[in-house]
Amino acid sequence: MPTESSPRAWEQVLSHLERRLVSGELVPGRRLPGERILAAELGVSRSSVREALRVMEALGLLKAQTGSGPTAGAMIVARPTGGMAMLIRMQVAAQGFPVSDVVKTRLVLESEVMHLLASQRPAPDLSAAIELLESMDDPGLSPEEFLILDAHFHLALAHAAGNQVIAAMMTGLRESIESYVLAGAPVDSWPTTCTRLRHEHRELVDAVTAGNIELARQRIVDHIHGYYSESTRSGH
Amino acid sequence: MPTESSPRAWEQVLSHLERRLVSGELVPGRRLPGERILAAELGVSRSSVREALRVMEALGLLKAQTGSGPTAGAMIVARPTGGMAMLIRMQVAAQGFPVSDVVKTRLVLESEVMHLLASQRPAPDLSAAIELLESMDDPGLSPEEFLILDAHFHLALAHAAGNQVIAAMMTGLRESIESYVLAGAPVDSWPTTCTRLRHEHRELVDAVTAGNIELARQRIVDHIHGYYSESTRSGH
Repeated sequence: MPTESSPRAWEQVLSHLERRLVSGELVPGRRLPGERILAAELGVSRSSVREALRVMEALGLLKAQTGSGPTAGAMIVARPTGGMAMLIRMQVAAQGFPVSDVVKTRLVLESEVMHLLASQRPAPDLSAAIELLESMDDPGLSPEEFLILDAHFHLALAHAAGNQVIAAMMTGLRESIESYVLAGAPVDSWPTTCTRLRHEHRELVDAVTAGNIELARQRIVDHIHGYYSESTRSGH
Repeated sequence: MPTESSPRAWEQVLSHLERRLVSGELVPGRRLPGERILAAELGVSRSSVREALRVMEALGLLKAQTGSGPTAGAMIVARPTGGMAMLIRMQVAAQGFPVSDVVKTRLVLESEVMHLLASQRPAPDLSAAIELLESMDDPGLSPEEFLILDAHFHLALAHAAGNQVIAAMMTGLRESIESYVLAGAPVDSWPTTCTRLRHEHRELVDAVTAGNIELARQRIVDHIHGYYSESTRSGH
């Protein structure tokens, strides 16, 4: 066993890696040095290095390394969505975040996306979102498959609106409480729900394309309220 | 050295702790079992347990344990602000989040806070925020001290508005780029800036107290734009 490292050694490693990210020496796509090398460079135990790397992985900054050679370090990425979802989900679990605050914040951010899209002239490119709508018309989809595409549709709108932070937060908010929604959704009424969601999605795109800001905002508010009210009726 | 644990063992530990949080068996204020006990319970190495605990600490769910007995585990907390700030700061560092998107998102959330406060009748209790304004009148404050109180003032408004998720995100957004703002702020003009910020803060409170939603929103937008434009003028 390695000697127990100083309690805050992992934070030193994290700060060191943050500085190398800020300086541009480390960029997404590049590999970190291996654990052993980092530990020697920084004068900390490998165990402290590994703890810092796990934190970076959980925050969406490192890709888990599988099957690479023994000297290869983990790959730098910049995928904030996963980290944001994990953070919000864990805070909901620890009761730091009430579910109702999560839903309200999602409403604020999705409304802003609608506002940004509908006020953009010429109309923004919604082809990625529209392609997802077409995939969602497949009658063979399971509810789980449909809802994954549904989440991608909302994310595609956020990306079209051009704000990466809003896109990550919105998706993190949704993902963080999706398991409660799925658990609470009444199975019987799925065909009706699914038809309604398909219709509402097309109406969202229509309002954006028409440049009708108020209509687009109203429709997203109704759409999200409807989504959660159906599951909360079953007790969540 | 312990045997290298399975790459995903730390995620199993995290999921296990999440389930115990969701079930209410673990709540803020309670201590986790010690590392050794958790490792034995879950059949993973202590090193994997430690990695999961570091992730929880970084996400604002565990308090670092100092000076407690050898059998005591870390304390569960629910402090999302620190975790949110770290996530956003690291994503800015890794270029996952452009600084301009961070500022725009802060504007959206702070505008929502103003909207919530100004539309609340009877007028919300702003005593915590007003007390901070009085502390900020102290002419002996350094810029750093002033800006810490300033951040607390904005957080006090968010808490008064009653949405914990918005409060944590807003603060995380601000903290994540505060070091750039401080680095870019022209030192010479601090007395002028400080006087302006004091004045603007009081105007925000006045607009909320008067229940003037549009004025409150306009003032927060101008206030935040002013805050960042001063530092960006110096190249950030």
